[in-house]
Order: sequence, then structure tokens, then C-alpha cells
Amino acid sequence: MYREQIKVLDCTIRDGGLINNHDFDHQFVRKVYKAVSEAGVDYMEMGYKNSKDFFSPTDYGAWKFCNDDDIQQAIDGIESNTKISTMVDVGRVNVDAVNSSSGSPVDMIRVATYVKDVDKAIVLSNHFVDKGYETTINIMAISRDMGPELDRALHQIQKESQASVIYIVDSFGALYQESVEELVKRFKGILEGKEVGFHGHNHQQLAFGNTIESIIHDANYVDGTVYGIGRAAGNCPLELLIGFLNNPKFDIRPILDLVSQDFIPLRDKIEWGYIIPYAIAGMMNEHPRAAMALRNSDKKENYREFYESLTNIGLE
Amino acid sequence: MYREQIKVLDCTIRDGGLINNHDFDHQFVRKVYKAVSEAGVDYMEMGYKNSKDFFSPTDYGAWKFCNDDDIQQAIDGIESNTKISTMVDVGRVNVDAVNSSSGSPVDMIRVATYVKDVDKAIVLSNHFVDKGYETTINIMAISRDMGPELDRALHQIQKESQASVIYIVDSFGALYQESVEELVKRFKGILEGKEVGFHGHNHQQLAFGNTIESIIHDANYVDGTVYGIGRAAGNCPLELLIGFLNNPKFDIRPILDLVSQDFIPLRDKIEWGYIIPYAIAGMMNEHPRAAMALRNSDKKENYREFYESLTNIGLE
Repeated sequence: MYREQIKVLDCTIRDGGLINNHDFDHQFVRKVYKAVSEAGVDYMEMGYKNSKDFFSPTDYGAWKFCNDDDIQQAIDGIESNTKISTMVDVGRVNVDAVNSSSGSPVDMIRVATYVKDVDKAIVLSNHFVDKGYETTINIMAISRDMGPELDRALHQIQKESQASVIYIVDSFGALYQESVEELVKRFKGILEGKEVGFHGHNHQQLAFGNTIESIIHDANYVDGTVYGIGRAAGNCPLELLIGFLNNPKFDIRPILDLVSQDFIPLRDKIEWGYIIPYAIAGMMNEHPRAAMALRNSDKKENYREFYESLTNIGLE
Repeated sequence: MYREQIKVLDCTIRDGGLINNHDFDHQFVRKVYKAVSEAGVDYMEMGYKNSKDFFSPTDYGAWKFCNDDDIQQAIDGIESNTKISTMVDVGRVNVDAVNSSSGSPVDMIRVATYVKDVDKAIVLSNHFVDKGYETTINIMAISRDMGPELDRALHQIQKESQASVIYIVDSFGALYQESVEELVKRFKGILEGKEVGFHGHNHQQLAFGNTIESIIHDANYVDGTVYGIGRAAGNCPLELLIGFLNNPKFDIRPILDLVSQDFIPLRDKIEWGYIIPYAIAGMMNEHPRAAMALRNSDKKENYREFYESLTNIGLE
């Protein structure tokens, strides 16, 4: 599949940061940035722009806060056409502390929101547009909000937001491709003049397949991470996405080197990937929170009990 | 997705046998059969009916030959509605040594063939139909044979074969879902009165997604294996397939127990799953043979060199 408009965003450090408290050292981030740049990836997302009023720097690494200085240090001197992205969560950012785009290494700010908070996301996104950033709104946990409330949110975004890309985020890894098709068509039907994006989670080994599905139906912004790193089962593997997109600007080899040199050893230290409790959570359309707790307990391989605990939710 | 006509075939022992010379002990096969039966899976495939004229029993375990006695021993006394399948390869079976269905625990024989050998597969399949078996023809490595030769083979099958199910087999894990859609429609357009089946390989994490795609377009026979075990990257995970198919006859819990008790330890002894050289082979539409050799060498994590060796094929 080759379509010039398709943009690939690497969120290795941002989504990977969710499993190590955003505590990647600067050298590692630098190495990922270099590889992603050499591979020709369009954007790289470094982490969250959270306010230190809400989270303590003693508990989290630099990429929970994404100060411009940290980003500048990680990218300094590396030749690159890759744009820099950061993410903000509704209610966790101090907007006044965010520099305007002209004084920042950051090109894009993505606003993550639930459907119920879309009003706040619109205000935030417009604020960042005014500061000169490319801006997206990423609708999380969408598999739980597929009723008329989603249409209302999309109409409101269309009417009030200047964000240029609106993302479908399958936070629970619960979507099958029929729903991806339906959602992309629904987004495109309401959002005129905006692009649709897709961010998958791999709980049921469908992150890549669902990303392809979104591309087939004309989503043009798609996310991946190196070797699929990310919370719980992780994300769409960037290397597979690059292999699928036959755009000659991409070169898979720097990513292959990065996996063999850094991500194979890293996977021995922190866990992500196809792991049954995450698959169960995906099937049940549940947040992976309970599965993550299970994996940190001595019942980590006790799948039946975990399955039964989820099927009994709400029955007691 | 619920459609009563959908039949699930577990080929854990058959495809898993490709990575351990079919050397599962009878107790293990018995345990898998019990779990698959309790889960309500329609068929379980035990292995290949190869002739001992072609392969030595000193080199291979019982499931390379699938004698009726071995199968009977594995299933004896277990309550089950699961039918038994075995596979034959064109040119490797002594047909005279296969009992008629009435004297055998086997219900179904699946004939694996390349497009070029379809004449022989038709003769074989008709022979097994005459002996009273349910019979399928499984067209392997189909991603390499998608030109007019495939249409000719399908027309010949339609005209001459009594097999009731014709399978699309993505041996190289090279298909994306556009091609799965195209293939299922092509099969259904030519094959009247026969069912279409799909057997995926997981080189690019697409076995489950492609299986869903085949089901969307009305394939009714689909294969899975416990925890995705199988050659190279393995197959569609049976537990995900059962989770997707909302048929109340299925119970995922016996499969979850089997994974936690037996397949997690087994995975430490033999390798399958998402492994970069298999992903590269899938992207390149190549047999995983070279990748399997790499994984048995001291260059097992040298992905760039492997990638470049494949891209240079035919350029020298």
C-alpha cells in the first residue's frame, strides 16, 4: 500500500514510557531518534507534557514532562526530517508553561481525551494551534464510547476545533476490523477538512491488522512503536508498518538494528507483547489495569481465575 | 461474530509438530485433545499421514505417521464431540495403507498441495472421499500463486474433486487483508457447493486478523493452534479465535488452562511467535526456511544482514 499522504508517527518513547515511568535515559532516546530519522519516519513522540504540579520528578523520568531542554539535548546534532511530537492529557498540563512553537523543538502536540472530556480537549487543542503547533485530538478508549455520544463529540470537534487530525485510539485493544472500518467511515463522514488517525493496541494481536484496515478506509495518520513496545500488550510494531507501506522514503534497516541491539535486551527487563491476561482484557473490552496488576502478582499465569473474575464483573 | 456454519479446526499437534519433528508424547496429545474437546472445538488435527517409506520413525515422532492405533490411544475414554483430522502431503502418503473411514478414528483427511500439483491432490482427495472421509484440499503458499494458474486450479477442483472444503493457506505469512478478501471472493466465485477455509501464519502478526477477514467474507472453516504454536512465527491463536466467535458452544477456559500449565513452559523449550527474521520473510513473501536456519545459528539476532541477503536474491 503506497499513498503519499500517509504519515507515520513513532511513539516508542511515549507509549513505552507507560511501562517504565517514562524513565528512558537521554542516550537511549537519542539512539531511537537517530534510527527513526534514518528510517524516514514522519514524526516521533517523546512523551507527555505533564505539569510537575500533578506528578513528581522524583517518581518519573524526564519524558513524563518533556521539557524543551530535554528534547533539545536528545536530538541535538542529529540530521533529521522527523518532526517532534508530545502528548498532553486533559487536566494534567499547565498550558501557560508551554512555549510557543517558534521557541520549541516540538512541532506537534497531541491532546488525549475521553469522549466525555471533548469540550476540554477542544479548548486545549485550539490553545496549541494558537501557539503555532500542529495539533491533533486523540479519542481514547473509543471501544467504550461508540454510541451517539461519539457522533455528538465529532460534530462538536468539527464545529469548534482547529485540530487538523482526529485519532481513533483503541486503548483496550478491543476493536476488530469491522469496527475499525465503521469508525473510520463515521469519522470521515463528520470531519470535513481534517485527517483521521489510528492508534492501535495489540492485546489481541490486531494492532497491525487494524492499522492496515484504517489505512484501507483512508486514515492517513498511523502510529507504531519499535518492536511494538507499549503498555500491556503494546502497540503496532513500527517495523511491520514500514514493511507494509511501500513508500520508498522509508528504510526499515535502522529499525531492525535498533531491535536487535536494544529492544531484544530491553524486553528481558520490562514486559510487553502477547500475554494471555492482556488478550482476555481485550476480548472483554476492559482496561488492562487488572491484567497489569495480575502480571505483578504471584498469580501471573492463573488465566482461568482472571477470566472468571472479569466475566463476573457486574454480576455480583 | 456468530455464524452457526463456522467450523474451527485446531491444528496444534499437526502444525506444532513441524517444530519438534512431530515428537509430542501421547500424554501431551491426550491433554490437548481433552482441552480442545471441552472447549467445543469442531475438529482437531493430529499430524500427517506420511508413509514410513519416505520418513524414518527413528527420526520422527508418532504424529508424522498418524497410525490409527496411536490416535486411538490418545483419545481413548475422553468424552468428546470433536472430530479427528489428519493431513496428507501430495506424494508422501501410501494410500493403500489408509483404512477406510468406518475402521478408523479419523473423520477428516486434508490434502495439502501447491497449485502446480493440484491434479494429484484431486486424485488423492477423491480417493479419501471414496473411503468415506470428509475431505479438504489445502492450497499452500498461495501468496506465490495468485495469477491465472490459481483460477485454472480452482476450476479444475470444481469440475473434478469431491472435496467439500477448499482452503487458502498463507504458508509464508505474506498476505495482507486486501488479498485475503480478494482470494476468498475468488474462491467463492468459482467453487459452487463447496466451503472455503483459511489457514493463516503469523509472521507479520496477521494470522488472527486475516482469519477474521476471511470470516467476514464467508469462509466457514478456520484453523487455530493453542497459543499460536506452529512453524516459524506460528499460527492463529485458538484462544483469540474462540474469543472472537461468540458461539455459545465454545468455552475458552480449558484452552486458558492448557496455555498456563503446558504451553508457557513449552515455549521456553521450543521457539515460535513474533520473531523479526520471520517477519522479514513474511514481508518478502519468502518461505521461512532461511529465517529458521538463521535462528539456529550464532547470527540469530543479525536482522540487517538477513534482510539484505533476502533483498539481494536474484540481483546477483
